[in-house]
Amino acid sequence: MKKCDITFPENKTFDIIPIGRIGIDLNANKLHRPLEESDTFTKYVGGSPANIAIGMARLGRKVGFIGKVSDDQLGRFALNYFNTEHIDTSGITIDKTGATMGLAFTEIKSPTESSILMYRDNVADLKIHPKDIKESYIKKSKCILISGTALSQSPSREACLMAMEYALKHNITIIFDIDYRPYSWKCEENVSIYFSMVARAADIIIGSREEFDLCERIVDPKNEDDKVTANRWFEYKAKIVVIKHGKEGSVGYTCDGLEHIVKPFPAKLLKSFGGGDAYASSFVHFLMQGKSVADSLELGSAAAAMLVSSHSCSDAMPTEKMLLDFVRAVKEDL
Amino acid sequence: MKKCDITFPENKTFDIIPIGRIGIDLNANKLHRPLEESDTFTKYVGGSPANIAIGMARLGRKVGFIGKVSDDQLGRFALNYFNTEHIDTSGITIDKTGATMGLAFTEIKSPTESSILMYRDNVADLKIHPKDIKESYIKKSKCILISGTALSQSPSREACLMAMEYALKHNITIIFDIDYRPYSWKCEENVSIYFSMVARAADIIIGSREEFDLCERIVDPKNEDDKVTANRWFEYKAKIVVIKHGKEGSVGYTCDGLEHIVKPFPAKLLKSFGGGDAYASSFVHFLMQGKSVADSLELGSAAAAMLVSSHSCSDAMPTEKMLLDFVRAVKEDL
Amino acid sequence: MKKCDITFPENKTFDIIPIGRIGIDLNANKLHRPLEESDTFTKYVGGSPANIAIGMARLGRKVGFIGKVSDDQLGRFALNYFNTEHIDTSGITIDKTGATMGLAFTEIKSPTESSILMYRDNVADLKIHPKDIKESYIKKSKCILISGTALSQSPSREACLMAMEYALKHNITIIFDIDYRPYSWKCEENVSIYFSMVARAADIIIGSREEFDLCERIVDPKNEDDKVTANRWFEYKAKIVVIKHGKEGSVGYTCDGLEHIVKPFPAKLLKSFGGGDAYASSFVHFLMQGKSVADSLELGSAAAAMLVSSHSCSDAMPTEKMLLDFVRAVKEDL
Amino acid sequence: MKKCDITFPENKTFDIIPIGRIGIDLNANKLHRPLEESDTFTKYVGGSPANIAIGMARLGRKVGFIGKVSDDQLGRFALNYFNTEHIDTSGITIDKTGATMGLAFTEIKSPTESSILMYRDNVADLKIHPKDIKESYIKKSKCILISGTALSQSPSREACLMAMEYALKHNITIIFDIDYRPYSWKCEENVSIYFSMVARAADIIIGSREEFDLCERIVDPKNEDDKVTANRWFEYKAKIVVIKHGKEGSVGYTCDGLEHIVKPFPAKLLKSFGGGDAYASSFVHFLMQGKSVADSLELGSAAAAMLVSSHSCSDAMPTEKMLLDFVRAVKEDL
Repeated sequence: MKKCDITFPENKTFDIIPIGRIGIDLNANKLHRPLEESDTFTKYVGGSPANIAIGMARLGRKVGFIGKVSDDQLGRFALNYFNTEHIDTSGITIDKTGATMGLAFTEIKSPTESSILMYRDNVADLKIHPKDIKESYIKKSKCILISGTALSQSPSREACLMAMEYALKHNITIIFDIDYRPYSWKCEENVSIYFSMVARAADIIIGSREEFDLCERIVDPKNEDDKVTANRWFEYKAKIVVIKHGKEGSVGYTCDGLEHIVKPFPAKLLKSFGGGDAYASSFVHFLMQGKSVADSLELGSAAAAMLVSSHSCSDAMPTEKMLLDFVRAVKEDL
Repeated sequence: MKKCDITFPENKTFDIIPIGRIGIDLNANKLHRPLEESDTFTKYVGGSPANIAIGMARLGRKVGFIGKVSDDQLGRFALNYFNTEHIDTSGITIDKTGATMGLAFTEIKSPTESSILMYRDNVADLKIHPKDIKESYIKKSKCILISGTALSQSPSREACLMAMEYALKHNITIIFDIDYRPYSWKCEENVSIYFSMVARAADIIIGSREEFDLCERIVDPKNEDDKVTANRWFEYKAKIVVIKHGKEGSVGYTCDGLEHIVKPFPAKLLKSFGGGDAYASSFVHFLMQGKSVADSLELGSAAAAMLVSSHSCSDAMPTEKMLLDFVRAVKEDL
Repeated sequence: MKKCDITFPENKTFDIIPIGRIGIDLNANKLHRPLEESDTFTKYVGGSPANIAIGMARLGRKVGFIGKVSDDQLGRFALNYFNTEHIDTSGITIDKTGATMGLAFTEIKSPTESSILMYRDNVADLKIHPKDIKESYIKKSKCILISGTALSQSPSREACLMAMEYALKHNITIIFDIDYRPYSWKCEENVSIYFSMVARAADIIIGSREEFDLCERIVDPKNEDDKVTANRWFEYKAKIVVIKHGKEGSVGYTCDGLEHIVKPFPAKLLKSFGGGDAYASSFVHFLMQGKSVADSLELGSAAAAMLVSSHSCSDAMPTEKMLLDFVRAVKEDL
Repeated sequence: MKKCDITFPENKTFDIIPIGRIGIDLNANKLHRPLEESDTFTKYVGGSPANIAIGMARLGRKVGFIGKVSDDQLGRFALNYFNTEHIDTSGITIDKTGATMGLAFTEIKSPTESSILMYRDNVADLKIHPKDIKESYIKKSKCILISGTALSQSPSREACLMAMEYALKHNITIIFDIDYRPYSWKCEENVSIYFSMVARAADIIIGSREEFDLCERIVDPKNEDDKVTANRWFEYKAKIVVIKHGKEGSVGYTCDGLEHIVKPFPAKLLKSFGGGDAYASSFVHFLMQGKSVADSLELGSAAAAMLVSSHSCSDAMPTEKMLLDFVRAVKEDL
């Protein structure tokens, strides 16, 4: 059995560098109505790896980012927001080809019935280019986080693979947040090809059961067993595999053979999305702090509960104090 | 000298069918700040020919439309809005290729300093196809209005040319609203080629001095004289040529040799755009009502004044009563 | 009735400037077998307007050309060939984007059963750009010849329209050789739109019955009557309309109401293509020489007969002496 | 030290399945002149993996192929040729999107100065799709050969990666023939990303020094030492690494630490290309036959010598008897 010690080196400029999507959410201000009938919208920074960057910055981490924004007011808004949150933006390039920020109009018909309308033609975030990936920047971080959607199209796909190569070369921990968004993939077969390629190089893999199915579709299309899944990736480089099961909670596997089951945290559901990025950022933060995998997962679950009861997916990310207060308050209620 | 009688036939289902853009405006709710700092936005239907359709419907006209909307909530919002305004939507097709609604984020930094950020990659409105143009629909209208931006890209360009052919075949009045938007044109040379092509077939041409320069760039690149310009198009099919000079007012030429100078109407400027579509719709409406070209132009100018002092470019379009009341009130003030 | 006098001005540098396709033919050396089984091929310059340029140069005319060739050995071969034939190549630009020469593999299964396999992806000839069209070059010619295939795609389409505008501006005769090639058109509706646009501006129109049907599809889709067709275009600018009926010969109409029926010239058929370009070049050449329309058509027909009994479509173009000798020899045989 | 035993299993339908390019060579019939001045051409099947397939079939091997051809006479010619050579074509699909066969016009200016003009826009061979890759077909073979050019563009790239995944899953030997063709790659950075990805999964890697440099550019951009290179890939899956040095011969490394230097075979040079594919097919053939790495390399070198003195790159592939006779004759001469 492989020793299961993810240790994060000291003396690094950054704790984490997420790679991928940074976009704009336009959230309908009035809840519980179809998007057609929503008059006014509030704009937020959005996109899974951007949300994770904000989440970890709020928790006090030193955060870099590799991405690309449009050369317009919405691109500048995103950069400004990151700067205000003390996220390093030197790894973010500005598109000069007329690409736009990806837009996500959120529609909250009821607490359990939400949807997102994506306007992502010619988006800047999928134009990150291998040339934008600086070996020196990657080397400065304890870990990088590759968001699966960034693998969906070239040249962003190759930018991620390049970052992965540099991380492997310099022994930087690789976190793979599978983050499968069907609308971004033009060819369904490619999903499994690239997901399994990154999964084999990753130290930590986080995804839903359905997302792990995609990673295994070529080698073992019939498997639905979490433990078999986790062991598959432990044969490669992975040390922690986190499999999420929606309302039924999640399970964290470690390569020493342990299994950690986490129940979902009680939440007043306002919308059915946004929890995953809070989960990932809290989990990684507390893991870096030296907490056990089990404890880190539970705190991830608590952060998710906070987010699904908030209007935004980024601006509502809690500080450590807010998160711990929330956990305490909920536990006292029980 | 050509006789200058534009007569609109009775017994037609529609007074006008504008062709081209129907999009979504997202107008910042707080004025006088850069877009980066605008938090909330209100959505409206927008796009020059859509605004003209709404303007004329408010004035009591029977209005059709030829356009294309996205197959999503924003497309349905636009269709719903048109239906509510009693605009016939049977000529509007729904894109099935994943195209989106064009978005226009308006930024109003000060009453005289506004800008519009366009997100128009893969827009539905430029995908109107010659196949979408029904001869039987065109025949039902007193006139069609071709918006210049719809000429900027294929297949929308050819859809407009096809509509123009049917209008010529059946002696339907053609109004050409030059509406030049540089961002839509991939090749600058094409602007003059297609603008002059439609100008030669048009009965009424409306545009700014700069827009008429574009129509003449091949045949007479140095001309800046309005009268020379008007006469050029009178040699083809035009009977009325309206040339706008921004704050200095506009001039209407008729093919009987007359010139009608119109001063801008006094307005409390809130934003510096949106007036043109109100101008065009009022002008055409009153012309159809039998008013003189001079009077119609003045009422167009008044409608423009109402719009530049309103938050939207569509929803603020006045009814005839509102417009006449406004004119009366302003004149009493003087 | 319109006076029917096409006069070509003296003192011009060029007699004609064809616009459009210049490509490479790869003709199977062994006849009467499928292309699959053809081992060796001979390369020739090809493409309808290039063939016409060569045809007219052989007949002693001063010929210019507007086109674009690839920046490789095949492009240089085409330029060299034109130079050898004393065709002016200063209006031909060299593509710098990696476009290729269009290739046509000819397959001659039997004298009456031939086909052409086109390899025309990313071809240089369809990349002529409006910017490549020089007003000063057009002004130097007695006439321009627009080949319909060059209207099939942008930017070549707009380059032709630009050339047409300059020709109209300076009263240069416009010859429209309809030359319909279905494989070049991505949208069938566009064929009629652009063909009718150029037909309305042309002084001489040459095409088959099917090609004229395409020009009329919008305005009169049911007409099959040559005389009705000719009269339609005489209402615009045309003075000569030549309608070809394959093996049954052709008819030339002139705007003074005359009709000239031409029987096909007897020919030992080697292949069923290549005749049309010889026909056009001889017809225009003798018309310029002052011969009657009837005589010019007959000599066109004779040149066509020479070409369909030859291996190539360009290199076999006759000189005037060869053509007149051929006519004499055939007539003596009768 | 890793045991270095490449054993090829018995009882397989195919000895090898090359994946990638199958195209048409058009070889100038007269030698020693520029392409511009070459009149006639002979057509052959071409493309590196197609040549290797033909080479191995001539040597008596059972050969499959994964590729795509155009739906025209040239595509059918290629299929017919493979069938005649007893290569299984059931893994070759026919493109239905209008793609063409890649064309290579060869220019032989002198024995040492040759070039190839590629016409490869919209080629069928780069349209092999992951969906075309059948797990059951791959399983039937002793080995697959991935040709580097097939990695240059999607979807062919992903088709190769999919084939690689199936080969890994079923323990099928993977041969990586790096075959770098700069014109096929749109982004230079991608070359190293995908080459190193396949190199890590390959059992046998064959390439020139420059090609191996590309595989190492991310991890060790300064290395030029063959032994360092070979050892790098031995750390992954490779057992044999063959590095070619043009006229100076080649070196074969095996993972047991041995080095086999091979001098080039004396050849009457007719052209400077085409040798590599003969080399690869002979080398693999004799390796499968149980010959030593050193002997197999020498026979590869001999086959290369035969090809560079022939007009074609495919049709001139020798049978085993021809090859051994040639070797004997040359050795007697010495």
